Amino acid sequence: MDEIDQKWMKTAIQQAKMALELDEVPIGCVITYNNQIIARSHNQVERLNDPTAHAEMIAITSATEAVGSKYLNKCNIYITMEPCFMCAGAIHWSRFRKVVFAAADPKKGFTKYKPSVLLDKVEIIGGVLEEEARLLINRFFLRKR
Amino acid sequence: MDEIDQKWMKTAIQQAKMALELDEVPIGCVITYNNQIIARSHNQVERLNDPTAHAEMIAITSATEAVGSKYLNKCNIYITMEPCFMCAGAIHWSRFRKVVFAAADPKKGFTKYKPSVLLDKVEIIGGVLEEEARLLINRFFLRKR
Repeated sequence: MDEIDQKWMKTAIQQAKMALELDEVPIGCVITYNNQIIARSHNQVERLNDPTAHAEMIAITSATEAVGSKYLNKCNIYITMEPCFMCAGAIHWSRFRKVVFAAADPKKGFTKYKPSVLLDKVEIIGGVLEEEARLLINRFFLRKR
Repeated sequence: MDEIDQKWMKTAIQQAKMALELDEVPIGCVITYNNQIIARSHNQVERLNDPTAHAEMIAITSATEAVGSKYLNKCNIYITMEPCFMCAGAIHWSRFRKVVFAAADPKKGFTKYKPSVLLDKVEIIGGVLEEEARLLINRFFLRKR
């Protein structure tokens, strides 16, 4: 497993932990450019009262500001959970070339619908620090029961 | 064809015209609640330099603020073009029950990927004022050539 991928995923997991503390579904996201973080975020659906405020959506908007371009084709995106259909669409429009996620999401993950929603050339890596990411999700939903 | 649907679509087309004037891909969106408009928007990808700034995404965020709830399950959404998969995902998360669009989008529209990305019970109506909406799109892309 790529050490750099693990490193950025660790930062994404820190973001997920912040979400957990705020009683949000604990999902975190990091976007890198030239091997540096240019955006980090966590899910904020509850705080913003907005069903579109997923970690990825917030990070993408922030990254385009940082890069000064609407295309993030030289950036990588790290997410602690497999993106949903909406976020996969956003990743498509942003033209990412590498998508790394931790835990799979068989229920709402985009691969359930159509993996080809992403660009043809995109590199998709799943399972990076999966257990750690899933533990946070499980802790959240146990608390909600 | 439902007169009320046509009425709201006309307002969505006005929004698309505003986008055209601003040299944005001319797509407009209206969200109604209790037969009143609570959000209207147009595509702002270029102005905001943000690939996620589609008309629907902006309108949904605005509507959740207006309603004070992250669920828009008593709202209808009118769009001048078939939503892409990102926006279809956002429509799913917002729990809309009725989605009305004008022009179909065989290239990037969500029905190409998987119509079932929307909730099972959602009512989808396409083709309302289709010609008028498509005319704006065609005018935009002709200008770009």
